[in-house]
Amino acid sequence: VQIAIPLFPRLTALDFIGPYQVLSAVPGVEVVLCAEQAGRVDDDQGLLHLDVERSLAEVCTPDVIVVPGGPGAREIAADGGGVLVDWLAAAHATTTWTTSVCTGALVLGVAGLLDGLVATTHWAYYDELARYGAEPTPERVVMHPAARIATAAGVSAGIDLALTLVGSAFGTEVAQAVQLGIEYDPQPPFDAGSPLKAPADVRQLVLDVMGA
Amino acid sequence: VQIAIPLFPRLTALDFIGPYQVLSAVPGVEVVLCAEQAGRVDDDQGLLHLDVERSLAEVCTPDVIVVPGGPGAREIAADGGGVLVDWLAAAHATTTWTTSVCTGALVLGVAGLLDGLVATTHWAYYDELARYGAEPTPERVVMHPAARIATAAGVSAGIDLALTLVGSAFGTEVAQAVQLGIEYDPQPPFDAGSPLKAPADVRQLVLDVMGA
Repeated sequence: VQIAIPLFPRLTALDFIGPYQVLSAVPGVEVVLCAEQAGRVDDDQGLLHLDVERSLAEVCTPDVIVVPGGPGAREIAADGGGVLVDWLAAAHATTTWTTSVCTGALVLGVAGLLDGLVATTHWAYYDELARYGAEPTPERVVMHPAARIATAAGVSAGIDLALTLVGSAFGTEVAQAVQLGIEYDPQPPFDAGSPLKAPADVRQLVLDVMGA
Repeated sequence: VQIAIPLFPRLTALDFIGPYQVLSAVPGVEVVLCAEQAGRVDDDQGLLHLDVERSLAEVCTPDVIVVPGGPGAREIAADGGGVLVDWLAAAHATTTWTTSVCTGALVLGVAGLLDGLVATTHWAYYDELARYGAEPTPERVVMHPAARIATAAGVSAGIDLALTLVGSAFGTEVAQAVQLGIEYDPQPPFDAGSPLKAPADVRQLVLDVMGA
């Protein structure tokens, strides 16, 4: 099973490292990090510098695709297309799952993959998601087996998406083993991780900082 | 506030990306990724290639240190010392918090920082941790303000550690805003993230795979 994670400038690191850590732990899975061109890709903080060895053109028929989000994903969507979007639309024809984390959903959207589907993204970008014909939902992970499309909420939701995919493809025991291996027994010290739970002033603070 | 995250070969990516994502979102925080020498550092899967710009020698007096884990951390501990351990012991003299995620605790241990302290690490390595005079506990995050030492459980626990640190240093509202920004409202599809919750055969499977 080959799983492609396309990387691009100004992505959010945890968006892809969460699924990467889960999926690369599964025996028999080959995770391939790839980018428009092989070479250096920097994250949205400008602090994390990734040396990517494979170009998208080298990864033609992945079984699963996980598109991360971040400001770079919003830029790709705003551009209305490009090399990554063309690659995604073509590769989707033969995937078993084409998936996104956070604003990676906007890239699926601009590739025409979310039209008419209930889907999720980072909570601050539901309106942007709706532009692509998707029906935004605050669910954490949305799976559409018939359409072979799955979307996850913001940033950290990629871990839950990936465990769901592993359970679906390899069975509960394998997914539980991966969960135990990364000791994913979350105990957040605060309960403000969704816009429905966070105080209103905290929600506004985040919107202000994100410029959304 | 300068936060140093020392990287080394064969680290586990999520161990450091979790805290990195949380801490780098805080206004006024400078996160510095550093390594024994500037240059390329590969993770424990051999798939993630990091281009690290700063050497440990360039980061002398960080306010906070976060040491990630992974097979590479166990190797550093087994070596009984080295450049990173010397750097850590020296830098700890002036930190406000010296912290670890997962088997990063073994590096704190070999630097002599855990002697007599209750501490945590990845659940499969409690016995190794005890060799350094620490008293292992299955808690997710253990904070010792007087000793300026904090340790987190395996891999994904670094997110909870980092949010706890942010709440402690910058207040609850800032920590809640970061939590909401990364939409950290975890909903694992299985409840097997700790050795106390996972089925016994899943626990044995993980131990077999880890070779522990």
